[in-house]
Order: sequence, then structure tokens, then C-alpha cells
Amino acid sequence: MGHGGGGALSGELTRHLFTPAYGNETLGGLGDSAVLPLPGARLAFSTDSFVVRPLFFPGGSIGDLAVNGTVNDLAMSGARAAYLSCAFILEEGVGLPVVGRIADAIGAAAAAAGVVIATGDTKVVEAGHGDGVYVNTSGIGLVPDGVDIRPQRAVPGDVVIVSGPIGLHGIAIMSVREGLEFGVEVESDTAPLGSLVEAMLAVTRDVHVLRDPTRGGLGTALNEIAAASGTGVALVERHVPVPEAVAGACGFLGLDPLYVANEGRLVAFVPRTEADAVLAAMRAHPLGTGAAVIGECVAEHPGMVVSRTGLGGTRVIDLPLGEQLPRIC
Amino acid sequence: MGHGGGGALSGELTRHLFTPAYGNETLGGLGDSAVLPLPGARLAFSTDSFVVRPLFFPGGSIGDLAVNGTVNDLAMSGARAAYLSCAFILEEGVGLPVVGRIADAIGAAAAAAGVVIATGDTKVVEAGHGDGVYVNTSGIGLVPDGVDIRPQRAVPGDVVIVSGPIGLHGIAIMSVREGLEFGVEVESDTAPLGSLVEAMLAVTRDVHVLRDPTRGGLGTALNEIAAASGTGVALVERHVPVPEAVAGACGFLGLDPLYVANEGRLVAFVPRTEADAVLAAMRAHPLGTGAAVIGECVAEHPGMVVSRTGLGGTRVIDLPLGEQLPRIC
Repeated sequence: MGHGGGGALSGELTRHLFTPAYGNETLGGLGDSAVLPLPGARLAFSTDSFVVRPLFFPGGSIGDLAVNGTVNDLAMSGARAAYLSCAFILEEGVGLPVVGRIADAIGAAAAAAGVVIATGDTKVVEAGHGDGVYVNTSGIGLVPDGVDIRPQRAVPGDVVIVSGPIGLHGIAIMSVREGLEFGVEVESDTAPLGSLVEAMLAVTRDVHVLRDPTRGGLGTALNEIAAASGTGVALVERHVPVPEAVAGACGFLGLDPLYVANEGRLVAFVPRTEADAVLAAMRAHPLGTGAAVIGECVAEHPGMVVSRTGLGGTRVIDLPLGEQLPRIC
Repeated sequence: MGHGGGGALSGELTRHLFTPAYGNETLGGLGDSAVLPLPGARLAFSTDSFVVRPLFFPGGSIGDLAVNGTVNDLAMSGARAAYLSCAFILEEGVGLPVVGRIADAIGAAAAAAGVVIATGDTKVVEAGHGDGVYVNTSGIGLVPDGVDIRPQRAVPGDVVIVSGPIGLHGIAIMSVREGLEFGVEVESDTAPLGSLVEAMLAVTRDVHVLRDPTRGGLGTALNEIAAASGTGVALVERHVPVPEAVAGACGFLGLDPLYVANEGRLVAFVPRTEADAVLAAMRAHPLGTGAAVIGECVAEHPGMVVSRTGLGGTRVIDLPLGEQLPRIC
């Protein structure tokens, strides 16, 4: 199960097995989406399969995740999603009303994100060889001229901004899956981030890195960026916005909010000179009202994420080996 | 299970559930891939999930199907595949050597088809919620200027050509799955059809329809084209190339070769004036040596496929309700 968790084991599978097998430069970038040259345009192209349990949860469904997840992967290249594909693997016996509710959620989420479902596929497998509904979406979008956003571009001096409070999606899933109550209902943050990214790029095209910290959470995303760029990331842990309900649930469950999944948040690495303006633009957008500076890139500890703790000490934020919560997306 | 078989039930699911839910014109075309406008280019975009059992079979593997299937869906729009995504859903406990063999097959098939694996994803589900390995590929390619290939373009007078003998993939899968022996080993015909389509388009850009008759076989493909265009298709059944081994196996199993899956064949509808030249170009290509004219479009029985049998009678070739062989691709 750990190989599917988005942590170190997932990375090994990709680096040591898939990348050599497919042998090409494009895949080597390992961003959330590939940026591809075509005559007259640069395309972003991304794919994700969704296996979340349960199919419906507070704040959304597998249908919302399937649209928003791929829209967001494209947005992390600076691209506005144009077209999505949508492929179902249905388990024999799943009710058509369930499939219908998911398709309706996909349609509504696509409309909200301004993306067109262009093509699809449906396969059915025998009972016991699936889990109700699995969905794959792939997406394509155009990358604006002058935009070059990828993990390798983080450099010392960059300011690290998160777009809002973290951990809501993971805790929302966990609460329904385990039947836990935390006083207040925690809702998933699933949302399409394309227009937030557009608002940021209207300030400056020189955004260095964007990442949506889904599986593996913020801690994993920061580690991947530090490793890809060879830059150190200094995190000010007390500046990371953690909702009270998430902090409480994490304490109860023995989880670290830094590794809990998000579905409607992004982390941005921007040049210091642009940071204030980008932060202001984010806060003016409905999906960025809780944006906060949470750290910076440093020349020290290259490739590592180090947190300054509340007490003035430091701790290394590692890449998790597997996953805290399986099948979160 | 029938809803995944590519027959009438699959069509109902798409028409009555998915298309209304996603509500857009692009999806309404319902070809093997969508043709999408982007500044300066027309893109083809297609997706397919592969759930074939077993993962390895005579003539190929799920990896070959995953590449060739999507390359071929793009080719059926006249597009040369440029980039593929590749997403795995792995069942907990599947051996990494198995995943490695599949990834190697994907890499080799991509190289053979001249397509780049640009982006990917891996999810892992618990044992009992998958079946070893499921693979989704999505692909994008460019449609040449002046090419407009889609099922709606079939018109009375078109000549119907199949690129080679039918039924090999389905019988190859069936033979290993059921442990049957038919004297000679039947191998899957899985192959990338992009270069064959290029050779055809070098003769004329006015190819009306292309379809790779996979799930549901040639009979289903012809029915879909007849229904989409409102044209009658008159099939000369004795001209359909059925290998002896396929005919024998079908007799033994009680199957109709017209509904058995293919993975490296196409059916083309071309204007009568171009038919001889297109057929010659196909026969000169390694994947089209067995090409044959199998019928024509007629003004009679609009939307229906009618076969002239060996004895001079006629029979209606219906759209099958579900599927003869589940999980064939």
C-alpha cells in the first residue's frame, strides 16, 4: 500500500521503474503535469486516477476530486485547463444511481472550473475486483507565454506561500471513514485552483514553483520541491495555518497535519521582490483568503526541509515512506 | 458486466448518463477520440482504461494494449499520436517484477509507435479491490489540415475496407483464459496503426470514417457507424477475412467472429473513387497486407448493417446487448 501513498516509496517506483522503462526527457521533469511543445503552443498534460473511499464525503465526492485534481495539476504548471478526459472502472453491481450522482458531480465541477469533458471510457470488472467506482481523468491546457513553473526553479531567497489552512480534506475523509466526530464537521477543501493561479500570474509571470499538496500533504510537497531544486526550505511551523478542528483531530489520531492531504490548496515559491504583491492578490481571491507566508528558500541544508519550531529549536521535515491515510484521493 | 462490453448497454450508459451529465458539444461526437481546437492546431484527445485478463497473453500484454489502444483511437481521427499519459491502479500485493514487465512493454510499445509517455500516476488499492494491474492511458496528437474523419461522414457509395483478418485478439485471450487449445496458437494482433493511417492519408485526405473494431468487434463498429451516419451498410460476409483458427475456435465456442475483439485492425469508409488506391496503399503496408473490401454503404436500410450471406440470403447484423468476452482489453 505504501507505494501508492505519494511518499518516498511512490517516488522510488516512479524513478526506478517507470521512468527508465519509458526512457524520455519529458517524463524526467516529474512535475504535476508535463509541459509539451506543439506547433504554436505549449500544452500542459496531466493524468490522475481517483480511488477515494468513501465515494461521497463532507464537502464533495470522487467526482469533484476527479475534476479538481486534474484541473489543479494543470494549474500547477500555470496552465488553464481546457479539456478533460474521464474514464470509469466500475465494479459489477454498483448502482447506476451512484454512477449518475458521480457523473453529475463531474459535470457540475467541470462547469465550475470552466473545463470541457471531451472524451471518455467505461470498463466494468467483476464484483470483488474493484470498489464501486474508480475514475481517471486526464487534462490538457495551454501554458501562457513567459510562464515557466516547475519544482526545479526554487532558489534561495524565494518566499514560500500557502494559499490557506491545511489538512481539511484528509481529516474530512478520515472522519467519515472511521465514524469519528470532532465536535464540528470538517469539510473537504476540494476546489479548482485555475482562477487563483491566474490571479497570481496577473501580478507576475515569474512564479517559480506551484504545487498542490494532495497525497502526502504539505510536508511531502515541500520535500519534493527541495529535492528537485537542490534548495533548502526553512519552514516557520507556527505560521502554517492549521484549523483548530484539524489540529484537534490530528492530536487525537496521532497524525501530523503537515502530512495530511489537501485538495484545494497550493504552495507557491515566488521571488522575494514579488512576494507581497502575490500574497495580496491571493488574499483578494475567494480561494486564497487564508494565504500566509510560511517560510523561505535558503542556501543552507540543500535539498532538505527544516522547520523552526515554536520553542526556537529546529526539526527536519522528512519525506514520509508510505502514507498516513490510504485512498485519500 | 454488460455495461462494460462496448455494445448497446455501453452506448446507453454513455448517451443517457454521461453525456447529459457533462453537457457539451465536444463529447457529442462520440468518436474514438475527440478533435479539439486549440490556437494554431487541431488536437485529437482520447482515453482508455485497460482491465484485460490475463495481464500477459500470446502476442502481447496489457502494456502493449494500453499504448496501442490509445495510439489507435487517435489514429481513427487521422491523428498521429504525440504524447501519452499512463496511470496505474495497482492491487496491494502485486509483484513489482510484474509491474516492471508491464512498464517495459509500455516503453517498448511507445517507442515502436513513436509516441512519448509524458506524464503518469500510480494508485494502490487494498487486496481484493483490484485485479493485479489496471492501466489507463490518455493520448494527444495532431490532426493534419484537411482531414475530417468521423463516423457521421459515412455516405451511400462509400466502400468499406477492413485492414486484415479479424478475431485474433479475442480468441488469443480466450484461449489462455480458458486453457483451450485450437491446434495452432492464436496470437493477438495488437499493433499501432498510426503509420498505416498515414499511408492511407497520403493517397487521399478524404477518408470518411476510420474505426478500430476492439470490444464488440467488427459487427459493433459497423453498427455504430451506421447509426451515427444514418447510412445503411451492406456487408458481404464471405469477403470478411476470418483466419481458419479463429473460425474453428468460434465454432467450438459458439461465438460469431464478427463480434470478437481486434486490437490491430481498422475498418475504413472511403469514397468509391479513392477505394482502389487506398486499398493498394494498405496492402503495401506491413499492417495492411490482408486488407479487403468487405462491403459498401447503401441508401437502403438506413442506420442498419445487413449482411449478404454465402447462400444469397440476408441477415441483420445487430448491435450486441452486452459482451461475448468480458475484460478483453
